[in-house]
Amino acid sequence: MARTIHAALLGAGTVGGGVYRLLERREGEMVNKLGAALEIKTILVRDAKKPRAGIPPEKLTERFEDILSDPEIDIVIELMGGIDPAKRYVEEALAAGKHVVTANKDLLAEHGFELAETAAARGLDLRFEASVAGGIPILTPLMTCLEGNDITEVMGIVNGTTNFILTRMTNEGTDFADALREAQALGFAEADPTADVEGLDAARKVAILASLAFHSHVTFSDVPTVGITKITAKDIGYAREMGYVIKLIGIARSTNGEIEVGVSPMMIPKRHPLASVNDSFNAVFVHGDALDDAMFQGRGAGAFPTASAVVGDLIAVSRDILAGCNGRVRLNPYRGLPLQSRGNAAHRFYLRLRVEDRPGILASVAGVLGNNDVGISQVIQKQRTEDDAEIVVITDRVQTRHMEDALTIFGSMSVIRDVSSVIRVYSEKP
Amino acid sequence: MARTIHAALLGAGTVGGGVYRLLERREGEMVNKLGAALEIKTILVRDAKKPRAGIPPEKLTERFEDILSDPEIDIVIELMGGIDPAKRYVEEALAAGKHVVTANKDLLAEHGFELAETAAARGLDLRFEASVAGGIPILTPLMTCLEGNDITEVMGIVNGTTNFILTRMTNEGTDFADALREAQALGFAEADPTADVEGLDAARKVAILASLAFHSHVTFSDVPTVGITKITAKDIGYAREMGYVIKLIGIARSTNGEIEVGVSPMMIPKRHPLASVNDSFNAVFVHGDALDDAMFQGRGAGAFPTASAVVGDLIAVSRDILAGCNGRVRLNPYRGLPLQSRGNAAHRFYLRLRVEDRPGILASVAGVLGNNDVGISQVIQKQRTEDDAEIVVITDRVQTRHMEDALTIFGSMSVIRDVSSVIRVYSEKP
Repeated sequence: MARTIHAALLGAGTVGGGVYRLLERREGEMVNKLGAALEIKTILVRDAKKPRAGIPPEKLTERFEDILSDPEIDIVIELMGGIDPAKRYVEEALAAGKHVVTANKDLLAEHGFELAETAAARGLDLRFEASVAGGIPILTPLMTCLEGNDITEVMGIVNGTTNFILTRMTNEGTDFADALREAQALGFAEADPTADVEGLDAARKVAILASLAFHSHVTFSDVPTVGITKITAKDIGYAREMGYVIKLIGIARSTNGEIEVGVSPMMIPKRHPLASVNDSFNAVFVHGDALDDAMFQGRGAGAFPTASAVVGDLIAVSRDILAGCNGRVRLNPYRGLPLQSRGNAAHRFYLRLRVEDRPGILASVAGVLGNNDVGISQVIQKQRTEDDAEIVVITDRVQTRHMEDALTIFGSMSVIRDVSSVIRVYSEKP
Repeated sequence: MARTIHAALLGAGTVGGGVYRLLERREGEMVNKLGAALEIKTILVRDAKKPRAGIPPEKLTERFEDILSDPEIDIVIELMGGIDPAKRYVEEALAAGKHVVTANKDLLAEHGFELAETAAARGLDLRFEASVAGGIPILTPLMTCLEGNDITEVMGIVNGTTNFILTRMTNEGTDFADALREAQALGFAEADPTADVEGLDAARKVAILASLAFHSHVTFSDVPTVGITKITAKDIGYAREMGYVIKLIGIARSTNGEIEVGVSPMMIPKRHPLASVNDSFNAVFVHGDALDDAMFQGRGAGAFPTASAVVGDLIAVSRDILAGCNGRVRLNPYRGLPLQSRGNAAHRFYLRLRVEDRPGILASVAGVLGNNDVGISQVIQKQRTEDDAEIVVITDRVQTRHMEDALTIFGSMSVIRDVSSVIRVYSEKP
């Protein structure tokens, strides 16, 4: 009879339920896939008395201790999210010699390296494919298939909620507040949407991707983040006129031995593969010196897509257990690249200015930009009301501090009523 | 001092040279990545006296025996292509206890399972990520990250040459012969383009993808193949009018316990992610019961993209060597699903008929289709010359044998001058 590998689930919510049901679906085949059966033996929940469809009540426990002290349990699957108590549970599981599979981006983006080191020191696996881009295989490919590359760019749409909202705003002309309400009604956005719409969720994923791609220490707090709450239907319209689509982009680049990371709305040229990734889909675009360009797209969230990644990790850990070779591959910051200082980062920008409508204003705006070394690539001027006009500029690639200097001067000019929008424009790596 | 893992290259052509140079670029980092150095010790070539830029002549040999009998060589990298002598060399390498990394789709599509079995029986790794879609990680993700899924569809653009030609025909209105000549001039097509333009290269990749995705035995000869040589600018124009793009698609589906495989030109709806994969790019679209839809795109050929996949495999084999756990994962046909008989496969079709221009012809055509259970989804009728008209039909999903019956009747009708084109139209899995 084939051996059985036992795992425990921490959390029986949407993803936990998905993992449990997916393993049930594959039960008859697992021995063929692995040479062993794979069984969820125990599930940690807050209320073990609450009935859960399809889950035998005798598997439920409210005490983590029951899992920790069970020598039969080889793998702990952490699906609680958040740092506390997830971090403590993961540390205790590793200390007890149990492998860990987790979908927890908060935890990995802040404590990934120390947890990876703890696991490696004990010859244990710590896998977290589900923590970035849900069902899309991206972390495992970065750590194996693409490991021969010098990866210089990883960028993507890694938050489905904001992509859904921006797609609605782009296709239907909806404004942000209405699109958000629709996303909430459809279950794509939470009651408190802050982590999604302010880009915090995407920033955690960027920290994890950058850490893996550049073999360097990047954490959540290193990622400057701008959300989508200030994007207007007007900006989306101008973007379209100029050949762009606005997406919330997480970006990680290595240039001249420095790392640039960030999350912000970005104008993407219509022909770029990321421009046509719509609705709640995620996509990650990778550039490597051998690979050239590649893109991975799919479902970035949801019970089953996330369960797909978790079960993939479970299968990998189980194969390692059966072959006795856990702990071979790990998050390894051997390159130790520093982060680029923000002012030196060079970007293209889209500016929308509300100005007095009188002769010479466009020349003054162009003059200020020119004096601050900000080259202009495209310009549109539009009448708004009788004495009110709008100037839209797309700049060349300029250093952020030069752009900020020009914006400071705009702020002091009486003919400029306000700087309505500043949005980064995608440009190829230099 | 760190251990050195030694490998041998069979072939120092485009890809072999790329692998050698890529490993040189990563030389300083390999110990960090692996915990060991990785060195190409010997290279099998036809003429060891011919100088090769960047490759030390003392590494070259004309005798495979030198590699086989060298106990220091752990891994043989087969990049010769073709069945003979590649198959013999791979078999002999495995028999000598050496792991094998190969980019050889011809070999894998015909003898993949027997080679995989030989390797597994000896606890050796046999990896072949580069054999499908060049640098795009797809086989490794299918065997690990996506292994928890019931994969029901794998389809894609897996031949860059034909995608380049069709993109030219679509965007510039070029005809097939001119686009082919351009592809040859640019080095995207070989002097003898048969394997590419007749779909044989794509069929080999479909066989490999289907074998992995469905855990069943599918070989090259199982894949019915239609090339792109008969696609005309006219068909591309009608496709555009009806909202489609024509691509050469390799498809593998499992439906009701049967496998459908094939390579053929296909009309893809403009909104499908594959429709915007252009030029020499490849893309593979995967549907799994948990994953839902995902797509992987990138460079399907070229020295460095292919080297990216080969070196990824080398790193994986080396990690397994260092941990003593080779032979864990293999091509395993445990499901043994049968192939669907061709006549039962249900597809949508595009037909272009040249007919006499007189009243009632459209009704006769519609009548024949209706009598043969072929539903009509879209129809266009166009005047061509004074007495010559053209009828273009897109059908509903119909059984292939019903379509073939209708085509036989069309062949016997004097008012139908010829059936100019029959092209499959993409439809969602039923």
